[in-house]
Parts: sequence; C-alpha cells; structure tokens
Amino acid sequence: MRNLLTISELTTMEIEQLLVEAEQFAKGEVWKPSKQTMIANLFFEASTRTKSSFEVAERKLGLEVIPFEAGSSSVLKGETLYDTAKTLESIGVEALVIRHETDQYFNELVGKLKIPVINAGDGCGHHPTQSLLDLMTIKQEFHSFKGLKIAIIGDILHSRVARSNADALTRLGATVVFSGPPEWFNQSMSQGNYEAIDEAIASSDVVMLLRIQHERHHQNSEKMIDCYLEKYGLTKKREKTMKKRAIIMHPAPINRGVEIDSELVECERSRIFKQMENGVYVRMAVLKTVLAEKKGGNIHEETNQKWSIAR
Amino acid sequence: MRNLLTISELTTMEIEQLLVEAEQFAKGEVWKPSKQTMIANLFFEASTRTKSSFEVAERKLGLEVIPFEAGSSSVLKGETLYDTAKTLESIGVEALVIRHETDQYFNELVGKLKIPVINAGDGCGHHPTQSLLDLMTIKQEFHSFKGLKIAIIGDILHSRVARSNADALTRLGATVVFSGPPEWFNQSMSQGNYEAIDEAIASSDVVMLLRIQHERHHQNSEKMIDCYLEKYGLTKKREKTMKKRAIIMHPAPINRGVEIDSELVECERSRIFKQMENGVYVRMAVLKTVLAEKKGGNIHEETNQKWSIAR
Amino acid sequence: MRNLLTISELTTMEIEQLLVEAEQFAKGEVWKPSKQTMIANLFFEASTRTKSSFEVAERKLGLEVIPFEAGSSSVLKGETLYDTAKTLESIGVEALVIRHETDQYFNELVGKLKIPVINAGDGCGHHPTQSLLDLMTIKQEFHSFKGLKIAIIGDILHSRVARSNADALTRLGATVVFSGPPEWFNQSMSQGNYEAIDEAIASSDVVMLLRIQHERHHQNSEKMIDCYLEKYGLTKKREKTMKKRAIIMHPAPINRGVEIDSELVECERSRIFKQMENGVYVRMAVLKTVLAEKKGGNIHEETNQKWSIAR
Repeated sequence: MRNLLTISELTTMEIEQLLVEAEQFAKGEVWKPSKQTMIANLFFEASTRTKSSFEVAERKLGLEVIPFEAGSSSVLKGETLYDTAKTLESIGVEALVIRHETDQYFNELVGKLKIPVINAGDGCGHHPTQSLLDLMTIKQEFHSFKGLKIAIIGDILHSRVARSNADALTRLGATVVFSGPPEWFNQSMSQGNYEAIDEAIASSDVVMLLRIQHERHHQNSEKMIDCYLEKYGLTKKREKTMKKRAIIMHPAPINRGVEIDSELVECERSRIFKQMENGVYVRMAVLKTVLAEKKGGNIHEETNQKWSIAR
Repeated sequence: MRNLLTISELTTMEIEQLLVEAEQFAKGEVWKPSKQTMIANLFFEASTRTKSSFEVAERKLGLEVIPFEAGSSSVLKGETLYDTAKTLESIGVEALVIRHETDQYFNELVGKLKIPVINAGDGCGHHPTQSLLDLMTIKQEFHSFKGLKIAIIGDILHSRVARSNADALTRLGATVVFSGPPEWFNQSMSQGNYEAIDEAIASSDVVMLLRIQHERHHQNSEKMIDCYLEKYGLTKKREKTMKKRAIIMHPAPINRGVEIDSELVECERSRIFKQMENGVYVRMAVLKTVLAEKKGGNIHEETNQKWSIAR
Repeated sequence: MRNLLTISELTTMEIEQLLVEAEQFAKGEVWKPSKQTMIANLFFEASTRTKSSFEVAERKLGLEVIPFEAGSSSVLKGETLYDTAKTLESIGVEALVIRHETDQYFNELVGKLKIPVINAGDGCGHHPTQSLLDLMTIKQEFHSFKGLKIAIIGDILHSRVARSNADALTRLGATVVFSGPPEWFNQSMSQGNYEAIDEAIASSDVVMLLRIQHERHHQNSEKMIDCYLEKYGLTKKREKTMKKRAIIMHPAPINRGVEIDSELVECERSRIFKQMENGVYVRMAVLKTVLAEKKGGNIHEETNQKWSIAR
C-alpha cells in the first residue's frame, strides 16, 4: 500500500489485514520506525476528531509531527497544493495526511510525489480511515460481517462515509440499507436500497447515523432540523425497537437532539466514543503500513529508544 | 487532587504543598511519568503567556502535547465542550488544560470525564495557576504570608485573579486591600477593604497591579485609559513612596504607560518576569499532582529515557 | 555569532563556515544539545516553507519547539514584541526565530534579551537564512563563487532576498546583475547593474527569479501579471538561450506561469526544490552555531538519547 486514498481501492484482504493490525495496536503492540521520521497533517477544513486522532496515532508511533496551519500557509499566497506538498517532501517530511474540501484533490498529487499520501477526507468524496474505524468497531462486536444488516441513516448524498462504508461492507458480506430524508438518497448507490426509518432501525444489527452537515446545507437547513429527530432521527422510542444486540454508531461531531436523542449518546448500545478510540488504532495501522512499505520492510521492528542516531 | 478548577477549593495545606513542589522544580527536580502521556491544551481565548507556560511545563515533564486549535476545531460545527473533551479522552489524551470565556465552563465536565481538568481561566471567574504563581513569587520574597499587606489594584470586578488571590492570601495569613477606580471595586468582596491609591501603594509589601482588559471594556475604555496612570497607576512618583523591600507584581500582558510607567516594568522592585518564570514551576507541580493521583503514585519516579516501551 | 539578523553582518569567513557546517548536515552529521532545549518560532506573517523548514531543522537537532500562533497570542491584546519575547525568555525558551512585517523589528530586541534571535524575514528588509540556502545551492553546483555571473530578476525593490544575496555574492567574488521591470530596480543598489532580460538570462550562470509579491502590490498588480511571463519571466524560449551548465533558482512560493513557465519548475536546470532541501541544512547550521555559542561550546557533542536528565 503506497497511499491510502479511498476504501474502494483496497481489496477485502487488505482491509482485513489493516483491521488485524489495528487490533494488535488496540492490545498494546508497539511499533516505531527505526529512525527519526517526520510527518505533516494538512487540514484545509476544520476538524477536531480526525486531526487529533491522527496526531495521537503519530505520536504513539514515535513520529515527529511538523505543524501545518492551512490558515497561515503559503496557500494564502496562491501556492498550489502540489507545490505545497512537494515543498514538504523536499524538506524531509516522509508522509502527508491531507483533508481538503475538493473532491479527489489527490489526483493532483498521486504519482508525482515520492512520499505517501493518506486521505483524511476529500470534499464529499472519501474518508477511508473513518470507514476503517467503523469496520473495526463492527467487527469487534460481531466478529464477522457476513449476514449482518447495517442501516446507514441521514445525509447520504453529502457523506464521504456512506458510500465508502456501503461499498466495503457489501464486499465484506454484509447487507446495507439506507434511510433518512428521501431527497438525500442517491439513486445511483447500487450498494443498498432505501428503507423507511422505523423499519430500518428495527431490523438492523448496526444503526449507523450520519451527521447533518450544516456547513454544506445552507438553505432549508433550519427547517429540516426542526423536525429531523422526530422524522428521521434515533428517538428513545425507536431505540426500544432495536434488535437485542444491535448497536448505535455515529461518526461525530454529533448534533445532539437532531440525529440522535441526547440521552442515547452514551447509552449501552452506543459505540460512538468507542469508534473514536478505534480511530487511533486504525490510523496507526495505516501509517505503519505505508511507512513500512516506503522504507522497505522494517515492520515489527521495535526500538527501545526514540530513534537511532544515523551516522 | 483530581482536578484543579479554583484556588478556593484547595486547603491552605494543599496550596503549601504545591508551592513546595514548585520550588523543587525551580531547583531542577526532574519528574516524568513512567510511560508516554498525552495532554491537550484547549484555549478558546487568546493567550501567549499561559498557553506557552503550560506547554513548557508539559515538555519539561516529558508529556506529549496534542495540538488543539479552537479556531479550526469542531466547535465551529457546533460541538459541545463536553463532546470535545470526551473525544479527546476517547482518543487517549490523559489530561486537559482548558481556558474558556464562559464562567465555570467546567461544571459541564466535572464528574463526567475520567481524566483531570486543569482550569487555565474561566471567563471572569478563576485562574488558579496564576494565583499559585503569584503566591510562589511572594513566598520567595518574604518566606511567609503572615503579616504581609498586599494591595490589589485595578480592574477587580473583571479580574479572575483578584478574587482568587484575595481569598488565598487571606487564608494564608496576609491582609489584602483593594484600590483603583471605585466603580471597579466589588462591594461583595469580603476579603479586603478599599483604600485610596496613594495610601495603598505606600503602605503595602506587595503592589499587585491588574491589567485593564480592553477586550472586556468596550465603552469609555479609551477615556479611562487616558488618565489611568496618573489616577490609579504606578507612576515613578508613587514608586518612590513604596516600602523599602516592597515588590511590584503584574500578571501581564502589561499595558505599558497605563497600569505602570514603562520604565518601572523591569526596575529592581519588579517581579513581573519572575512571575512568568515561576508560572512554569507551579504548572509542573499541578500537572505532576493530578497525573500522579490519576495514575496512582509514581511520584518522584525518575526515568532516564523519554518513556518506557510497554509490552 | 550571538544572533543572526542580516547577511551583511556576517564576514565572508563566517558565511563560508556556515556553508561548511550545512554541508556536514546534508551528509548526515548529527548534533544535539546536551540537555533539553526549547525554541519558539514567532511568525507574524504567513509562511509554509520557512516555518516548516525551521521546524524540521529544529526537530533534527532534537530541540523542543514551543508552538506560537501570532493570531491567538497576546499581541492581539496590544502586547509589544519586546514583552512577548521577554515572556518567552522568562519561561525558559532558549532561542527565538522571528518573522515580522516590520523592517528591522529586531532593533527593539537586540541587546535586551539574553537569548539569541534568528531573523526569518523582516518586512522588505532581510532574510538571511534564505540567502544562505541560495549560497549553499550555488556552491554545490559551482564549488566557488569567483567569476560567476548571477542574474537576480524581478521585484528587487520589495525583495528581502535580492539585496542580501547581491551583497553576499559580490563579497564572495561573484558578479551580480539585476533585471525585470525597470520600475522595480533600485538605483541605490550598488552591488549590480541593470541588464535587459534576454541578455541577463543568456549570459548568467545562475538565473535567480524573485517572486511577485501580490500581497505587497495592490495596484496594477493584475495588469502587470498578465504580460509578466512574456516580458520578464523565464519562458521556455528564454530557457533555451541559457548557458550550458547554468541553473534556475526561485525562493518560492512560485507563481506558476508568471515568473516562470510552469513546465520549467522541475526541469533539469531547476534547483528550486533543492533550495528547499538545503534550507533545512543551513538552518541547522545557524541554530547549532547560536546555541553552541550561547551554551559555551558543546559543539560536536553527540548524545544517543534525546536529552540527558539533569540532576
């Protein structure tokens, strides 16, 4: 794996391998590169969770994180993303984690850089490490994807997770259905059918809620939100209809009282904060995989100092 | 000590202990947690001094500081402070240092997080590490608080330091008086009386100036400032009336020529930059105390590598 | 060398020493201070390249970088640069790297701080580490400066590099000519004459393009840019007239299609990304030199742990 751009480009074998690796990290495995390794996180969109999660993953791997603030960078002076990336490569940064508001921004980079790019979200496109952490959370619960029914509910049209997850889950043997406002259902999504909200919630093993992205819906947004919980959200009443061992997921940040009743956020079925924890482990797995590939095989090497001194 | 939210919640014994610990750090004591420990500084208000001071303290303790920029965080997407804090806890951050513009923002968090919160300033409320560094600076000078007279001068009403300091100093045996514009004197402050500026300065062992917080006084602010130094500030003339061993303190940032004549900022009596230096040591003491409590007792353990490798 | 403020203040001997040191770092030399050392990068102007380059250099030297964000600092509360710098000194920061929009901002600091200041750009004034990296790149190519002809082309008037480079190159034995829009040629620059663009490009060993600083040219800027490449830029046609071993340099960020045809940015003659790589090495050399001077001679000491534990 040279880069990680979309979940679709991974085979199910590669996905399973990353999940196994992530589970090792969850159990306390330690892996560090054999020499000082610099990385940069280029976030051109606001983010707490993903950026901090990558940062924690990077620190746990002993990487040195070179700060990059989009707001005070040369991008303001009109520099292209390619030139910014090439600059970081030139000064010795060995991998880039990038979130950018442009769909498939990475087409501008791939094949032209010597260092790996990890996509941390592109426009309404992809967010592969989010998909991986969702898969890890489901696997921890059910041990396999075969025969599971997963309902993805909400703003499917704008979500960079819905499509990636539907694609991966289907390939791994699960059945996916979509629900939420019909106008947000993308007819072109071949991986799943639309189901009415009450049916979707009552019959699924995983109720995966999507966030309403206020920042992407300027018009009618407030009207929509007013009655969203009642019409398409996870109310306490709907939660009672869920299958016995079914779980609740949400990529967060949560709009409390919109996608989900605030009281359910930390209920017994909720895996919302577990997802965040798992995010660190899947990112460690991805980083280890691309760095080890790049460096040619020092996987599983362990060092008991922060880095060895080159000479 | 699980959290540090206000100085009032500390017993005088606990305050004295923290000052002893801080003095040890000033003398070069080294303490590091026995394993890699992550911390985050959440500053929702502008700050150089406090944020950098915590950062230096954290680095001296060998902590890994996970960057958090309020301006590009999910708070912009409407996430609650609780959800942000819980997210950081979920991804493995082990303590939070928070400054927030809301008075007692911490009520939303305390008892609901598994990790300690250190208050780095809440609205017009509290700023306990600033109080501690003020106390440390006074103690270094006079060795005891008993019998000292301390004049707190300026914008008492909006200061998060005035009340905390008055409370702690009184409990430790000092006498506190307030001075400055009478309209900024809070009648409800039982810890001290109001004194005229010339009398307060001439008779005190510590002249503690407060900063005029332009950002909190929109109206009349400029008119006030025009004659502030003459009416309520520390002029060179008033400095000459000070007691022989009396010292000058200011929490900074300083408005030169407003609260204090610019030439006095680094005069012999001034402890202003000494206060900043001490800030690092009291923050190390606070961090050590909450982390050691949380982890159950590896205080005074020393390691000669950055962290041990868990297995 | 106590500080590094301008290239003019360095003797040619000192310049040559820094280049030798930088070349050592390029070859993999490792140097770290013998104890934990904190540094801060104060960038009051947008920057990717210079800030990240210093950051990488600092990490390679094992320094701890204390984050400083001008946009959320007390400078917003009206604090002077001196008080901000003194604050950082007080809390234990051991060197400051500063970029500021004010010409010679450092006059406010020099002689009043105990810690070294490294100028990372002052207004339209100086940018000594940029000059050093340019010199290093030229030296790598031609081994000596004697007899070389260097054309500096573009916005000479506003460039903080043009004058510094012209000064240093002349002292080191090269001949400098200037070209570009005549209205941007500063008659007072004694280090070189103005040459027409075609002649300058065809006859020089180094074609050093300067960036058009949109952020400094509000009026007529767009009109200027429209025909800039044709009139004063490095077109593919002009590149063909260059001397056999002549090289292309640009401090970046590049305005592709303005100063240079986009296709030439990574052509065989281009040393643009090499310059960036060299930036890390010259900054390591500068940091080592000022820190070793300050600490009194632990140069060339090597440690095989991040820092030793003081006791």
